[in-house]
Amino acid sequence: MPEAATAQAVTATIGDSEFDRDTAVTLREPGVYDIDLSAGWTIISAVNGGYLLAVLGRALADALPHSDPFTISAHYLTASQPGPAVIRTDVVRTGRTLSTGQASLFQCDDEGREVERIRVLASYGDLDSLPDDVRTSAQPPAFPPIDQCFGSGDGPAPVSGSSAITERLMLKLDPATLGWALGAPSGKGEMRAWFGLADGRDADPLSLLLAVDALPPTAFEMGISGWVPTVELTVHVRCRPAPGPLRVSITTRNLAGGFLEEDAEVWDSQDRLVAQSRQLARVRLG
Amino acid sequence: MPEAATAQAVTATIGDSEFDRDTAVTLREPGVYDIDLSAGWTIISAVNGGYLLAVLGRALADALPHSDPFTISAHYLTASQPGPAVIRTDVVRTGRTLSTGQASLFQCDDEGREVERIRVLASYGDLDSLPDDVRTSAQPPAFPPIDQCFGSGDGPAPVSGSSAITERLMLKLDPATLGWALGAPSGKGEMRAWFGLADGRDADPLSLLLAVDALPPTAFEMGISGWVPTVELTVHVRCRPAPGPLRVSITTRNLAGGFLEEDAEVWDSQDRLVAQSRQLARVRLG
Repeated sequence: MPEAATAQAVTATIGDSEFDRDTAVTLREPGVYDIDLSAGWTIISAVNGGYLLAVLGRALADALPHSDPFTISAHYLTASQPGPAVIRTDVVRTGRTLSTGQASLFQCDDEGREVERIRVLASYGDLDSLPDDVRTSAQPPAFPPIDQCFGSGDGPAPVSGSSAITERLMLKLDPATLGWALGAPSGKGEMRAWFGLADGRDADPLSLLLAVDALPPTAFEMGISGWVPTVELTVHVRCRPAPGPLRVSITTRNLAGGFLEEDAEVWDSQDRLVAQSRQLARVRLG
Repeated sequence: MPEAATAQAVTATIGDSEFDRDTAVTLREPGVYDIDLSAGWTIISAVNGGYLLAVLGRALADALPHSDPFTISAHYLTASQPGPAVIRTDVVRTGRTLSTGQASLFQCDDEGREVERIRVLASYGDLDSLPDDVRTSAQPPAFPPIDQCFGSGDGPAPVSGSSAITERLMLKLDPATLGWALGAPSGKGEMRAWFGLADGRDADPLSLLLAVDALPPTAFEMGISGWVPTVELTVHVRCRPAPGPLRVSITTRNLAGGFLEEDAEVWDSQDRLVAQSRQLARVRLG
């Protein structure tokens, strides 16, 4: 019993976790924030786009009178690097129930010039103020139990790639969408995984911005092994997630002309559809 | 024969049509454009959100080195009125294949102060430069032939509402999604229609921005008759549409907490999925 109690006590909490420390922004002057982008959220050497969105989302939560991102759209301009960055925010409009803001993240190039990495436009509100009505017709996708899904540490089918982010995530892939890792992609534009933070921190609206862009790309299951950089990503946060692991399902219906869309749905432990996202990504056909 | 030839000759063309005249912007100074928002694209008294997006899209097509919107995200701030407006654009980044820009539309209030109506962030490219590969797994939705669908002028089930925009659109609703107009909504979050411009102008990437927001809201088929104002709308234009009428299908999976998402797919006469969009809208439950 004492040991179990100790294990509970060291589980990270919202506000005191790797994710919170690595997305924390420091106010430099009104509307301007500093951050040191962590190397802990990279895939190969690229900083994960969902982590970047969470960083910008946190700056806007501070700059705006409302704290929850209801809808946030990001355009990815140049590749971010781990290290110092500055975020400049602009309050576009404040209203009683919704506020709209804009934010850009900049890093300095080798000659000390600021280069813009990503720009977002977002409308924020208060999720706790929303009425309880739920008339969702969507159903959660069928998922095997978490202990029948596979993570980066599981043999005999380890997820490939030496990425720092895998150490920070609890990502357990549905074996039905793991064919790519075995050299036998299904051909379907589907990827599904149980998702959490490795240190046990529960999900909140900001970590949902990470969750929608944390799975291997659907392109892998369509037999495409190359890089699939995000051009634009929009996330709708629809409900504060309940404690416990999330289920994330991503799908692609339209791979054409060197681009594809990736739609994500995030379901919480109470079977609520807590976030929906869509991104446009480039794809190099092999 | 001469009469038919004459009828052909008066069909509007891309560049010479109601839509082109009413979305035309006039360069005032570098990056700044004037427009007189037409009262011809209103629903009751509100200026249609898709028409506004097309206006901003046209300004960005002029301001950026690329002419086709690949992905454009709009946040709707305050209700636009027919009449004069100014658009201020900002070139965020220019690249070889993609350029990113921002644009805001302002109108003056009664005291002459500029009020921002809508802000967009968009990445533009050249649709004609894309490779021809199509690996779309999506199938066009089943549609009845156009002569079995219903428009605002068709009895015995005319589409209600006296809206100027109905005179400018060829909108023929699938009877399977017309229950709301007969007092018997299906309860499903679906709406489907054949779409064109009333003067016969064919579709282009800019008119696709109108097409995704031109149908009655899915909320009507879910038994909700109130206003469903758009908070945010993102459109991906994936292919230059072929001549001929478009098929537009919109769906809602998640109506909860006073908000809903509306996803649109636009298919052209060659069965190409030419545009995808998603919007977040507020809904007043009746």
